[in-house]
Amino acid sequence: MKVELRRVNDAFHFEAVGAAGVAVNIDGSPEIGGVDAGARPMEMILMGLGGCSAIDIVLILQKQRQIIQDMGITIEAERVPNETPSVFKTIHVHYTFKGDLNEEKVRRAIELSMEKYCSVTAILNKTAEITHSFALN
Amino acid sequence: MKVELRRVNDAFHFEAVGAAGVAVNIDGSPEIGGVDAGARPMEMILMGLGGCSAIDIVLILQKQRQIIQDMGITIEAERVPNETPSVFKTIHVHYTFKGDLNEEKVRRAIELSMEKYCSVTAILNKTAEITHSFALN
Repeated sequence: MKVELRRVNDAFHFEAVGAAGVAVNIDGSPEIGGVDAGARPMEMILMGLGGCSAIDIVLILQKQRQIIQDMGITIEAERVPNETPSVFKTIHVHYTFKGDLNEEKVRRAIELSMEKYCSVTAILNKTAEITHSFALN
Repeated sequence: MKVELRRVNDAFHFEAVGAAGVAVNIDGSPEIGGVDAGARPMEMILMGLGGCSAIDIVLILQKQRQIIQDMGITIEAERVPNETPSVFKTIHVHYTFKGDLNEEKVRRAIELSMEKYCSVTAILNKTAEITHSFALN
């Protein structure tokens, strides 16, 4: 696996590409001189967690012939305060689903992703307590 | 810190946003049914590492009045084979710089980021061996 970043402006805006060739914009926070031109690096980690888990859950529910009409994920995280580096301390992942879905199957799909399949979770839970919840229709 | 993902197509394409409101596209690999509409979740983690470290290095070199004309980062990683989940086993970060830059100051800036400041490194080095190199002009 290979990704490349190139600097876009003379501050902290970088553009990253991976295998798909789709540009991902990354920028620092305005507090340090960023211009809100992209996601913050630590946000990228949470987005990766959401994407990883979303893919697992869609795959599991599709195999069970469940119909997902819409799906969203909100992730909120707290970092260890007053430390450098400041890793994630707690991460809460909240899923919302719309569709013809069995509640127990949704619950089980989320658990399988978070406890068994998702590689990002397996990395992040070395430093953070990861919790999850969901709402259906 | 809060990020949100919403599903874009009926497969694995999700759009994520954080504090800046800039959309980041995420998609699964074509092998599982993705359509190359975005970065893979595990690539997002490497991009976050690159962005985190890039910001540190720019900040450090700017304080030292070093002139960075251009900067790029290539990150290559291997995952633990034949395991689920499959975390990163090795990560190599290669930096390229152009500008009026002192080689020793560049070396030290990279070391400070990777060993002391970067929160993403501090998370990823729980499971992976992270190495780095650089080329100047």
